[in-house]
Formats: sequence, structure tokens, C-alpha cells
Amino acid sequence: MARELTPRAENYSQWYLDLVNKADLAENSAVRGCMVIKPYGYAIWEKMQAQLDKMFKETGHVNAYFPLFIPKSFFSKEADHVEGFAKECAVVTHYRLKNDEANGGLMVDPEAKLEEELIVRPTSETIIWNTYKNWIQSYRDLPILINQWANVVRWEMRTRLFLRTAEFLWQEGHTAHETKEEAIEETEKIINVYGDFVENYMALPVIKGVKSANERFAGALETYSIEALMQDGKALQSGTSHFLGQNFARAFDVTFANREGKLEHVWATSWGVSTRLMGALIMAHSDDNGLVLPPKLAPYQVIIVPIYKSMDQLSAISQKVDEIVAKLKLKGISVKYDSNDNKKPGWKFAEYELKGVPVRIAMGPRDLENGTVEIARRDTLEKNVVGVEGIEDYVETLLDDIQKNIYKKAYDYREEHITKVDSFEEFKDVLKSKGGFISAHWDGTTETEEKIKEETKATIRCLPLEFEEEEGVCIYSGNPSKRRVLFAVAY
Amino acid sequence: MARELTPRAENYSQWYLDLVNKADLAENSAVRGCMVIKPYGYAIWEKMQAQLDKMFKETGHVNAYFPLFIPKSFFSKEADHVEGFAKECAVVTHYRLKNDEANGGLMVDPEAKLEEELIVRPTSETIIWNTYKNWIQSYRDLPILINQWANVVRWEMRTRLFLRTAEFLWQEGHTAHETKEEAIEETEKIINVYGDFVENYMALPVIKGVKSANERFAGALETYSIEALMQDGKALQSGTSHFLGQNFARAFDVTFANREGKLEHVWATSWGVSTRLMGALIMAHSDDNGLVLPPKLAPYQVIIVPIYKSMDQLSAISQKVDEIVAKLKLKGISVKYDSNDNKKPGWKFAEYELKGVPVRIAMGPRDLENGTVEIARRDTLEKNVVGVEGIEDYVETLLDDIQKNIYKKAYDYREEHITKVDSFEEFKDVLKSKGGFISAHWDGTTETEEKIKEETKATIRCLPLEFEEEEGVCIYSGNPSKRRVLFAVAY
Repeated sequence: MARELTPRAENYSQWYLDLVNKADLAENSAVRGCMVIKPYGYAIWEKMQAQLDKMFKETGHVNAYFPLFIPKSFFSKEADHVEGFAKECAVVTHYRLKNDEANGGLMVDPEAKLEEELIVRPTSETIIWNTYKNWIQSYRDLPILINQWANVVRWEMRTRLFLRTAEFLWQEGHTAHETKEEAIEETEKIINVYGDFVENYMALPVIKGVKSANERFAGALETYSIEALMQDGKALQSGTSHFLGQNFARAFDVTFANREGKLEHVWATSWGVSTRLMGALIMAHSDDNGLVLPPKLAPYQVIIVPIYKSMDQLSAISQKVDEIVAKLKLKGISVKYDSNDNKKPGWKFAEYELKGVPVRIAMGPRDLENGTVEIARRDTLEKNVVGVEGIEDYVETLLDDIQKNIYKKAYDYREEHITKVDSFEEFKDVLKSKGGFISAHWDGTTETEEKIKEETKATIRCLPLEFEEEEGVCIYSGNPSKRRVLFAVAY
Repeated sequence: MARELTPRAENYSQWYLDLVNKADLAENSAVRGCMVIKPYGYAIWEKMQAQLDKMFKETGHVNAYFPLFIPKSFFSKEADHVEGFAKECAVVTHYRLKNDEANGGLMVDPEAKLEEELIVRPTSETIIWNTYKNWIQSYRDLPILINQWANVVRWEMRTRLFLRTAEFLWQEGHTAHETKEEAIEETEKIINVYGDFVENYMALPVIKGVKSANERFAGALETYSIEALMQDGKALQSGTSHFLGQNFARAFDVTFANREGKLEHVWATSWGVSTRLMGALIMAHSDDNGLVLPPKLAPYQVIIVPIYKSMDQLSAISQKVDEIVAKLKLKGISVKYDSNDNKKPGWKFAEYELKGVPVRIAMGPRDLENGTVEIARRDTLEKNVVGVEGIEDYVETLLDDIQKNIYKKAYDYREEHITKVDSFEEFKDVLKSKGGFISAHWDGTTETEEKIKEETKATIRCLPLEFEEEEGVCIYSGNPSKRRVLFAVAY
């Protein structure tokens, strides 16, 4: 059957691509590295967006929109930032095409060269801080708590649908504050919002921490991240929140009169999550039969499939199903009834399994007689025959249970895959045999971090916010260390 | 006062720019022709988006996302399309910057030149039809009813905030159909959705019609539009829906096996509205005091301002206001209580007038004693003292009344500004003295249309869908004509 996926055990990477493709989530486009997000994939992204947007607004943020293009010179203004971003970007140099008289088709009009090249935004700190300059004069203008939903472009050489694409969709928050403390508080507030979202909506446990200097956002003084674990034992950075200090305010000369009337540079944060979260969602829970979606983010939570031989039977079943649909909708449950006569029930069962619909209800003539339906849950594939009476309460409880069960499964897997090691040999053994997060002492130097990466591909995912002080020695250099950090091979 | 606007009568164009600027809707950015949409402006756009998105989904459409970039060669494939769009576009030619050793700063890396240039999408027909090619084999794959919310770029030389900008935000629908009839039905369905939205949410009457050949979308067989009238007597095209025939299917070789098993080219439509609607909304209703927003699109519908001398008074008023806020929210009315002690009531009154909040409630100590509030409506500036008891019903009715009144005012203005003329002299006189739509006979030729435009700047806005057959002669050429069309000077 064409919808079959490569099993995870055989080739995890191919399984992922098969799944993204066959569940109609996304596909590669004619433009290198840019994807087409297909309607079913986009419907999941819309659910994620809606929930995140609500959480941002509940924490006092508002949306705005800044230009797609950034003048080249802006990137030179913040020294670290330019190193991190300017090297891999789409550069607009001309503003017109003309007919190519010699060769046919179109050619760039050499007379329409821009005086200064424009960069398609890889992230918007520079253009936004250049704008904030005019918005901020006094402490009364602060804080500014703005978020933007946008597309961004980073010229990646090796791309993979959702996980790493040249163009991706994201939100980027950019806030301006009076004090350092307030900016740090904002940075931490957001990493908690992200953690809350990923755990409670995506059903995916995360570890919150700060990045090592080496892995910080280009231009940040501190980068907080949430790190999740995929089923192949690799980590996936799922969101970051940056304390930018006064770096961008200095680069763009953004000052304010403080409460004492003195001019001071503004304190900044920025933070973002992207369509990469789709990759995390897909990889974290799905199985060899297809997607497994947490009910809170499923485009529809319940699919109903009729089983019938005659059109009379279909009509009688449909009548009963309409009642069930109405009851479920009253509970706020999203439901689709697939009475398409061109496809057989078996085809539909496989299709909705592939698409990760959390609950499937099937009703046949026997069910109609008995006042029952067959209910199958996607996460465990268990089936039960259930009475139609009170089915809305049953389904409501079941959806809740599935959401919790998916989380628990991911949580248990994650917990089993955090390994403490005390030597580099052990480190390499665990990486090879088991993968996952490795908790180890590290001497705090970029040099050691880079050597470990070179030899094992593992990077420091974060210095977890929750940790115990513990005397130890770095697994690589043997130098003293006061705490463990988390390593993993990452996406 | 710095918040005062240039009066409309003095300079309408400056009034508009003052308003966009001072009401915090948008501003020009550091990038030529690209705007920053500020939070208050964006909040209105979000309300528009949410309603439109709901209407698209209710009519069976789903959202998806296609790449920002389009390979240059795609534009050459549809002959008319290239003429309309390829000439004014942002062209990406390189994918890397490097340090400029000689001059400092950054320079384009000449070694990172793209083999084929990429165009930042001015509209997405080409990349989408190139994608649909792989999605469509049989009539069973049709229809495809997809919408995309996106940014697009058209290199405009003369820009004006919201009305004409190099980058703008929009939605673009792209549908694929089995038959010509179905595609035309879709084209018409959408122009009705647009009309419904603009009339019932933006409170702005529109005339639906089809464009003359000259004003059609590049690549369309028929373009439907909705045309609205602004307070300065100029027309504003507010949305278009295109019947594309099989042009793009032919250009990208998209065929399907029809019900008889024969290969046929797919029928197409595309349709869009953009942040230009913000310009229409602002210009249509506002006055010399600021914005006038229809309640259905106002970020908050009610503002409450306390009037007090002592903090005790403020506290007593706030307690009562909290009750009012709760009652309004129960009705689904959005409300903001501005108890900021740094600003005086007079300042707040002017501020919320400028921002177009439909209803203002003021409460002072005397009101508190009497169990009353003062209610001012933004559209007419009328004030009334009203009892707090049952205020939620009063406000609900008032909002409804404001929505209707704003529409009626715009409708009456529009009706007064549709003038029938029967000679070119009269045409020029009316244009000069009164403006608005001019209903006149036209001989149906592009030549005449262009001459009229040259001499008067007026264009054919549309051939209204509702019209009476009427024998007449073209006002310009004297040739016979069977119907009147609508002319106007347009934005």
C-alpha cells in the first residue's frame, strides 16, 4: 500500500520524511530549501499559532508588523549579530526584470540596481531596534512588548522539512525595558510560556535551561531554551528566549530618560518559536502507522466512519451520526463525519490513522440496532464498544486521557534517556548505545565544548535551570566543575 | 496640540497621513516603500483577518503556505502575467554576504551568486500552479480551494501608507476546478464574500462589477472587483476576484482526467484583499478629530474614563466601573478602562477620539451619586447621561446603531456621488466639481478608455453587475453603446 511508512527502526530519518509527505503535512517546493505547507499541516500550525498568540496576549503582548527587508548596513551595527546571521542570507540587489532580447525569457535589468542591497530578514532585531529608536524617549514609553508573526529566511545548505528550511514561519517577540531586572524577568517569563505551551498543548516534556556562551543567539548576553527529546534519542531545541542586554540599544543608539532624568540605553529581549515545532510534534509522538496528534492540536479530534452495505443502511446510520456530531460539538469537540461513498472503511481507517486523528468512531448496522459504536483511540490503538447514550462525556474524557497519555509516554521515554556519566568513555558509550540527554560535568570552556562536539557530534543542549550544585571534574579535561550540564546530539 | 490633524477640507491627502501617523496605525520604515504596521493598526488588521478567515472557511476553503520566492523562469510561462508583474519586483541574486576587507562593513559575496535569480512573490499564481501540477491527476482531486495569508512585494515608485506600499500583507485564494462554470461560480462567490465583509464589517458600501479588459489582472479572463468611494470623491478598488480560465493550467501543464477519462486543463480562480483595506477603512469614515471605527472592527469598542479629584473618588468610581466592565464583557463587548493617573480626562477624551473608539463612557463623582454615566458616541460626537442600570443593553444597542449609522452615512455619500452624464463636457465638469462615480456610456474599446484616462485621469472602475440595458452613445467617441459603466478617479 502506497501509504505505508518506512518503519522507525529501519530508518528513522526516512520514516519522518515519509510521514510528513504521506500525511499531507508539507513538501519540498521548486525553490531550494523552501517548503510548501499543505492544508492539513497548516491546520495544525494554525492551532499552535492561535494558542501561542492567546498566551502572548494574556501576558501583555501586542502584535505588530515590521518590514521583510533589512538594509545591509544594519547588520554591521551589532558585531556579534552580523557574525551569526549575515553570512547565510537572501540578498536583494535589483528591483526590476526586463525582456532578454538575446536569449528570450527575462533577465535582471542592470540599470535597476539598488544603491544599498536589502537582506531578506533572517530575524528582525536590527530593523525593529532602528524603529524603536523613534518610539522611545522616556521611561514612560517603556516597556514595549511586541510580537510579530512572520516569515524569515536563512540560507541553509542542508534542509529538512519543518526542522530546517531556508524559509520558515515563526513569531518573534521584541521587548524594550527600563531595567536589566525587568528584561531578565521578561526573558524568563517567555521561556515559561513556551514550556507551558509545549508541555500542555504539544504534550511534549521539555527541559528549560540556559545555553553555553558558544550556543547563544548572536548578540545575546544570555539565551534560555527549551529542549525536547525525540524518539531517536536526539534532542530538539524547541524555543529560545534571549536577554539581549543593551547591545541592540547601543548599536542603534536607543536611549531613554530614566526616572532620575538621565539618559540610559534601553534593555532588550527577543524570543521565538517557529514551524520547527511542527517537526518536534510529528517526531515526538508518531508511530509506524502514522501521526499521533495530541487532541489539543488536532485539526479534528474525532472522525466518524459509517460501515454499511446499502444506501438505506448509510442513511439510517447518518441520521444517528448527526445526533452524535451535534452532541460532540456542544462539548466543543471538533468532529468530522466521513460518509464519502468512494472509499471503503478500511481505507478510511488507515487514512485517519496516518493523519493522527485522536479518536475514531465507527458505526455499522449492528451498532445501530444495539445503540452502540466502536471507538478506537489513536495513541494505543485500543478499541471499545460503547453505548451511544452519554457518548459525548465518554469522548470528552477519552480525549483528555489521550492528551495525558501521550505526554506521559514522552515523559517516561525522556526520563529513561537522561543518563549521568562521569567519564568521557562512558559518555561516548552512552551516546552510541542509548542516545538521549547525558548529564555530565564540564569545565565551562568553549574549547572543551568544541572538542567534545568534534569527537562525538554531541553539543551542550543547556545548563538546566533546575540543578543541584555538585563538586566534580570535567569528563573531558578533568578540570573542576560545580555542576552538571546536559549534552546530546541535536537536530 | 501635537495630535491635531490637518483638516480634510484643507488637504485631504495630508489629513490621511496625519491620521495614520497620529492614531498610531503605521509609519514608514527605513526601507523605501515598506511600512511598519504599529500595534493599534495591526489590531484592526487582525480583526479584519479573523472575520475574513472565518468567512473563507465557512465557504469551504482551507489555508496553506507557499514559498516567498519564485524562480525567475516561472514568470515567463504565462505571457500576460509576466507583462503585469515581472517588471516591478525585488530580485534575489545572491545568498551570502562577507566582510568587506577594503571598505569595512559587509559586501555581497560575488561567489555566492544564484544560478537562477529568485523573485520575491508579487502574487503566487505561478509557484502555486507549479505545485498543483503534482496534486491533480483526476477530477477526484478537484476542486482545490486554498487560501494563503502572506506578505508580497511589488516595487512601487510612489507609495502611500496602506494604500500602496512595496511590501504589503494580504490573503490570496487560489482554486482549481473541473469546469469553467464551477470556476466562474467560485469567482462570483468570493466577490460576494468580499462585498459582504466590506459592507457589513467595514460599514462601507461597495459596487460589484467586472473590469474592462485593460484593467484586468494580468493573466485573467475576467476580473471582478468591489469599488468603494472615499470622502474626497475618489474610488478605491477594495478587492478583486479573478476567473483565470485555463491560462495557468496551460502555462504549467496542469491536466486532469475528467469524468469521461479524457485529459483536460484545469480551470482556475484567484482572489485577494490586502492591507489596502485598512486605507479604505480609515479614509471612508474618519473626520477631522480622528478615526471613526465601525464597532465590529474596533480593537476595543468601549473606553471608560474616570473623572476625579481625589484618590478616594477614583477608588469609588473604579469599583463601580468594574461592575460595568463585567456586564459589558458578558455581552461580548470589548472594553478598556483607562484609570492611568498620569493623564487628564481631557487628554484621554482627545486620544480615544483620535483612535476612533466607538463609545466613550465617563464617570465622575456626581455620576456615582446619581447612578449615571456620560456616554459619548464617536460617530456623531453626541453625549447622553444614562443610568448605570441596564447600561449593557444600552451600549449593545448603541454599538449596533453606530455600525448602521456609519454605513448609512457612507451609503448616502456614495449615492449622492454617482452621477449620470451624457457628454464628455459634462463628464469633465462633474469630475472637477463633484468627483465620485460617473455613470456613462462607453464604446467598449481600450483606445477610448485610455484617451479618457489621459485627458481626465479617470478610469473605468467597473461594469457594474447590476445594470439596465440602455441604448446610448459613447461620451467620447459617439459610437453606439448598450450600457453605462462607472468611471472615477481612483486611488
